[in-house]
This record gives sequence, structure tokens and C-alpha cells, in this order.
Amino acid sequence: MASSSYSNSPCAACKFLRRKCMPDCNFAQYFPPEEPQKFANVHKIFGASNVSKLLNEVQPHQREDAVNSLAYEAEARIKDPVYGCVGAISVLQRQVIRLQKELDATNADLIRYIPNNNTQDGRRIVGEGGEGSSSLNQGFYYPFSLE
Amino acid sequence: MASSSYSNSPCAACKFLRRKCMPDCNFAQYFPPEEPQKFANVHKIFGASNVSKLLNEVQPHQREDAVNSLAYEAEARIKDPVYGCVGAISVLQRQVIRLQKELDATNADLIRYIPNNNTQDGRRIVGEGGEGSSSLNQGFYYPFSLE
Repeated sequence: MASSSYSNSPCAACKFLRRKCMPDCNFAQYFPPEEPQKFANVHKIFGASNVSKLLNEVQPHQREDAVNSLAYEAEARIKDPVYGCVGAISVLQRQVIRLQKELDATNADLIRYIPNNNTQDGRRIVGEGGEGSSSLNQGFYYPFSLE
Repeated sequence: MASSSYSNSPCAACKFLRRKCMPDCNFAQYFPPEEPQKFANVHKIFGASNVSKLLNEVQPHQREDAVNSLAYEAEARIKDPVYGCVGAISVLQRQVIRLQKELDATNADLIRYIPNNNTQDGRRIVGEGGEGSSSLNQGFYYPFSLE
């Protein structure tokens, strides 16, 4: 778990909000003073109050991951105000679709050349619509055109 | 561009905020009254004021995309308060890495079986470290372990 390396300095959140950082500060362990931009970003995008509410909604052992994912989203939104990290989802979805098509085409080629559809290391070749293709139906799909 | 189908109804934002929806309302065209949850979600995660500021930062023709990506992020965060849509990025990144490995292995098999490294349809086979692998170095990498 992250903690401030300057125990006498206020955390980045309290410094940003110009308030005294008390020993029981909810933000201190997630927003150390040496990372001021991390809090500035989540404050700009989500607001300190929403971040505090969200931290109270999750288990203590999940709070560091929650803060880090919020910081990631906030930074992405500041870099790209229109799409934020949803832009990354769209890029990755296109990458998955392209790789799956390439894999299907390559497997189809292999099937033509290898007699019993088993490679030398024993892998079973799967053509279009096989196991490999099913990965397109898993996970996430961002439904808006981001072109 | 989305617009309310009930011109006499207040938009979902004004209804939620219990205020009169004026003809120049900034939210009306993006939050029609028939989609009340869309505004409720972005209000809970980002706050109405932050959404309004963000809309003013982007060009008018980009505002619908911005609202839709905010709505997507907000819904993902409500469903998964710890990782939000960053969880989707992590899943997709793993999918890309797995597909790229499969493709590299399949191309390596093809190279063993096809004499001049060209398939019947003229595609050039690329082994590990070739063109295909370069896609791993493009785009995004979420740096936290989400296991």
C-alpha cells in the first residue's frame, strides 16, 4: 500500500485543498505529497467528494487499486477530453479484431499445408469460427464509432 | 445529434436536478428525458458541474461523443467501483497479448511448411518479432496488475 515518504508533509490532496492533513486523513495513503498531479487530475475530473464517496464504497484492500484506476481514467480524460480512456478501449478492440482475422487466415493456410491439422508441438489448428474466433464474443464492446 | 423526442418535457438532467429546462439548456440535446439513467450515472461519477465544464472545453461537434464516452465510463464505474472501464482495458490488453502469441506461433509453423514464405493468396508470412509483433508496442498499456 502506498504511503507518504514525508510523514510531516500534508498529503497531495490536503495540500491541493489547502486544509490541515490530519492523522486519520482518508486520502493520505493514496495521494502522497510527491505525486501532486495524481490528486489534481482526479479532483479535476471526478471531484474530491466523489472520490471520497467511492473510496468508502469499496473494501479497504481495494482502495489503492480504485484510486489508481481513477487516476488512470482522469489522466486519460485530461489528455483526450472527448474520448478519455474509452479511446484506448476502441483502439484495443480494433487490435483484437485485426489479430483475430490474421490468426483465422493463418490457421486456414496451415490447414491447407498440414495433413492431420496438428502442428509439430501438438497444437490443434483451429480455422475460422473455431476456438480462436470465440474470443471476439468475450469481454467488452464499445458501441460508438470513434473514427 | 441526439435530441429529446418530447419537446415539452424537461431534459433528463434538468429533471434530475429539479430545475426548469430552458430553451438554451446545455444538457438537453445530450440527455433526453427518455434516458434518465444516462444523466444519473454521469452525475453520480463525475458531477453535473464537471460534465458541464468538460462540454465547454470541447468543440460543439465533439460534444455528443464526449457525453457518450462519459456515460460509458460512468456506467462501467457503477458496475465495477474498483476498476471501472479500466478493467475492460486490462481484459483487452491480455486478449491482444494472447492473440499476438498465437499468431506468432502459427506463423512460425507456417514458415516450416511453406517453402518461400508466401501463402497462396500472396500474403507474406511474418514470424516472431515481425510486423505482427509490433502491434504489442502500439497503443495503450495499463500499468497496474488487475488480477
